[in-house]
Amino acid sequence: MFESAEMGHAISKSVYARKVPALREKLLEAQFAILEQKRFPVLVLINGVEGAGKGETAHILSEWMDARHIITHGFGEHTDEERARPPMWRFWRALPPRGKVGVFFGSWYSAPILGRALGTVKSAAYEDDLDRIVNLEQMLADEGVAVVKLWFHLSKSEQKKRLTALEASKETRWRVSKLDWQYLDLYDRFRDVSEAVIRRTSTGHAPWHIIEGSDARYRTLTSATLVLEAMQRGLAGVHGNHNGDAVAPSAAAAARKPVPAAEIAIDRKNLINQIDLGQNLPEARYEKRLEKLQGHLNLLSRHKRMRDSGVVVVFEGSDAAGKGGAIRRVVHALDVRSYQVVPIAAPTDEERAQPYLWRFWRHMPRKGKLTIFDRSWYGRVLVERVEGFAAERDWRRAYGEINDFEQQLAASGMVVCKFWLQISKAEQLKRFEEREQTGFKHFKITAEDWRNRKKWGEYELAAAEMVDRTGTQYAPWTLVAAENKYHARIHVLETLVERIESALG
Amino acid sequence: MFESAEMGHAISKSVYARKVPALREKLLEAQFAILEQKRFPVLVLINGVEGAGKGETAHILSEWMDARHIITHGFGEHTDEERARPPMWRFWRALPPRGKVGVFFGSWYSAPILGRALGTVKSAAYEDDLDRIVNLEQMLADEGVAVVKLWFHLSKSEQKKRLTALEASKETRWRVSKLDWQYLDLYDRFRDVSEAVIRRTSTGHAPWHIIEGSDARYRTLTSATLVLEAMQRGLAGVHGNHNGDAVAPSAAAAARKPVPAAEIAIDRKNLINQIDLGQNLPEARYEKRLEKLQGHLNLLSRHKRMRDSGVVVVFEGSDAAGKGGAIRRVVHALDVRSYQVVPIAAPTDEERAQPYLWRFWRHMPRKGKLTIFDRSWYGRVLVERVEGFAAERDWRRAYGEINDFEQQLAASGMVVCKFWLQISKAEQLKRFEEREQTGFKHFKITAEDWRNRKKWGEYELAAAEMVDRTGTQYAPWTLVAAENKYHARIHVLETLVERIESALG
Repeated sequence: MFESAEMGHAISKSVYARKVPALREKLLEAQFAILEQKRFPVLVLINGVEGAGKGETAHILSEWMDARHIITHGFGEHTDEERARPPMWRFWRALPPRGKVGVFFGSWYSAPILGRALGTVKSAAYEDDLDRIVNLEQMLADEGVAVVKLWFHLSKSEQKKRLTALEASKETRWRVSKLDWQYLDLYDRFRDVSEAVIRRTSTGHAPWHIIEGSDARYRTLTSATLVLEAMQRGLAGVHGNHNGDAVAPSAAAAARKPVPAAEIAIDRKNLINQIDLGQNLPEARYEKRLEKLQGHLNLLSRHKRMRDSGVVVVFEGSDAAGKGGAIRRVVHALDVRSYQVVPIAAPTDEERAQPYLWRFWRHMPRKGKLTIFDRSWYGRVLVERVEGFAAERDWRRAYGEINDFEQQLAASGMVVCKFWLQISKAEQLKRFEEREQTGFKHFKITAEDWRNRKKWGEYELAAAEMVDRTGTQYAPWTLVAAENKYHARIHVLETLVERIESALG
Repeated sequence: MFESAEMGHAISKSVYARKVPALREKLLEAQFAILEQKRFPVLVLINGVEGAGKGETAHILSEWMDARHIITHGFGEHTDEERARPPMWRFWRALPPRGKVGVFFGSWYSAPILGRALGTVKSAAYEDDLDRIVNLEQMLADEGVAVVKLWFHLSKSEQKKRLTALEASKETRWRVSKLDWQYLDLYDRFRDVSEAVIRRTSTGHAPWHIIEGSDARYRTLTSATLVLEAMQRGLAGVHGNHNGDAVAPSAAAAARKPVPAAEIAIDRKNLINQIDLGQNLPEARYEKRLEKLQGHLNLLSRHKRMRDSGVVVVFEGSDAAGKGGAIRRVVHALDVRSYQVVPIAAPTDEERAQPYLWRFWRHMPRKGKLTIFDRSWYGRVLVERVEGFAAERDWRRAYGEINDFEQQLAASGMVVCKFWLQISKAEQLKRFEEREQTGFKHFKITAEDWRNRKKWGEYELAAAEMVDRTGTQYAPWTLVAAENKYHARIHVLETLVERIESALG
């Protein structure tokens, strides 16, 4: 979930200087239109790790907009007045009225996350807190409030670097407390809790945006753009509905609509286009590793603890990226009674008469088995999204539904492995042409493949967002550089062996 | 929450015989239209206490409709197949496809409620289960499934009577197990857990309907009518949206729309019109009781444990029911520094620029104080509903929002007392005329009061639904017969003293 905020996103000085004036002008313009209409307020929630630029962002937002109509609240220690009332009172008090912009620095998320990470809040109370937050934000959306939730992230090493840098300077030393260093020691726990909270509270009407915090120009441009787009959506009459549609649009309309700029990183980097495709493996080493890994996998598949577990493997990737070849290398290691490969094509009539996840539930393996999906439920947010087979509101809600689904698999003891196989556009062309020329591979290439290829960029963005929104602790994505088939297959097998081994203990 | 299902609802044989043929015809008609359209399925969930007629209802539904297109599933013990997969798998497997009607007897609610009541499921796992259910039902609504959730209820004594009766007959003896008697001993725990589950999962897209189970004719007619109305809403293109509006209607349109028949009990009984208005208290006894109760209340208000607590009192009721008089009798018992009376009139401009609950949050008392609301947040589901000031989708969501709000008050240690004062229509007329004739009371009667009086029936239904949907363990309603003012005031004071006393321990 945080992977795309650990990529080293950055914006150069010159690009920044070029973009800022127009952005500021648009922000002011939107702010005044909102003020004039007095139809809805804007509420920006700023959360995330210490040192990731939360305070700076709050400052800049009020600097770039008209500060008279922005109300920034920093929620720190409770006052005596606040302690005498229910915890949510302090936030209700501070809500911006219609027409205004409110910035909450340390919002209703701070206490549950802190309490959970430090272990001072019981799990039932914490769950209650999250329910309360979801209900509150639903209510805000229903009342027309445009809610923007920004999460500023730093990797552990980046956070350490940042705290050290702040402490080194006389001017900023006061900003680093002993507590910050103590929390750094608990980084992994904070990360786990934050991931769970973000997943639970990233709803259709109030999704989270995770922003890498290390480069000030990148995080500033990104935050301001996200706030601007939320304001513009509100002005266009779309409230609390991230997909930009109060009512389901026709599939065709959904297909035509461009991806909002805020969903494309300002520096154009994403998890997919940053995969290092140069990774390679010579054939000789491949053969040796393959044999060893297959033997290992076979042992694991017959492990006695496998009876109460099970493995669900998902293969997705560019066309011709080598999914089939990788799958064959996996199943060659297995007893034929222990696995099942489920190729996913267009749904049948019977499947079409059910909610889209139904056709995957029906193939759910029993415990003790390995089930390999050659393409999967992710079709909803890939091909169905890009081709407009699913309306935007429908594929948007799929992220949460898929996370729920996979959590149920994991909770019942299954290991969920998801592979994304990526090749370059040039390599794809080479493989397509090869397939057309090779008799026995001819069936593998269709007009549809050529059509999909034309939408390379859209598929890349869809895949990047998919990995971002559905990469979880219990069901992580493994991004595989598949330009070299040997490397790809070994990467897949290694990951599979590792994941199963650590699950079986 | 269960009060309106413990009133002794009943339907006579002749009324039943008259109503059934038309209902069956309409059910079949709707069923075939749904089958023909194949646009959405219907899913009826049947839950509730043992012996309340759940099985009979499932039988009758498939008898009254075309059994070929109804799929009834009874979920009992898990099969071997089911145990090997995540818990939700059995339900996914059984989902009705578009065009069909599914009846789930013992649905995804059974396991969490049973586990929680018996204490075999930990609270965190139970909360997870409820989250999963809410998400699943949201998804079903988004997928167009018409979900009808029926809860069959019996009071503890009714349940005992029913089990005894079943056991007495040779034909039905098999239906009563040792377990049923064991569960009867745990009745109160089941009731508490069920109330919490119903509250948490009664969402706008899938609300619960609580049906009194003791009279077979009443429960059958009510269930079948609810299923019919859900089918008709689905056919009218409204999915999973109980309020009948995919998009917010204009306030005027909302006001014009009649209350769905299913929301009026088939025998016309409701919690408001069943209040025994004949309750009386002679003046002499009143004076004595009043003095004693005021003294008691004063002591409680100065109790040292009051510092960590606080009291929120809500007065609602018919116009001229004597709210003001009752409030005066309460505050006369109190030190002027210890309480605050908040009269609620039309919102100010500043309040109108905020979510509707904001103006109540701003008056939230500190701990240690008593705050009395003369009218309250319930205006949203009373006057705003009846007069059409709030769109249906907005006042519908208010039930859940208000429950959340009051739960927060209760969780922070406050005692929440809510009084509904009821008089007869004739008594109201008498008091109105008296007010018009008495100089110093003249200001208390306005043209609006006369206008409201014309909507007596609508206000009664709104109040009955309000009490039903917002009467909770932590913030129960007290229904006060106010025809006799002495009786009413003593009832209020007694309740207040009891509630505060038991909270302070």
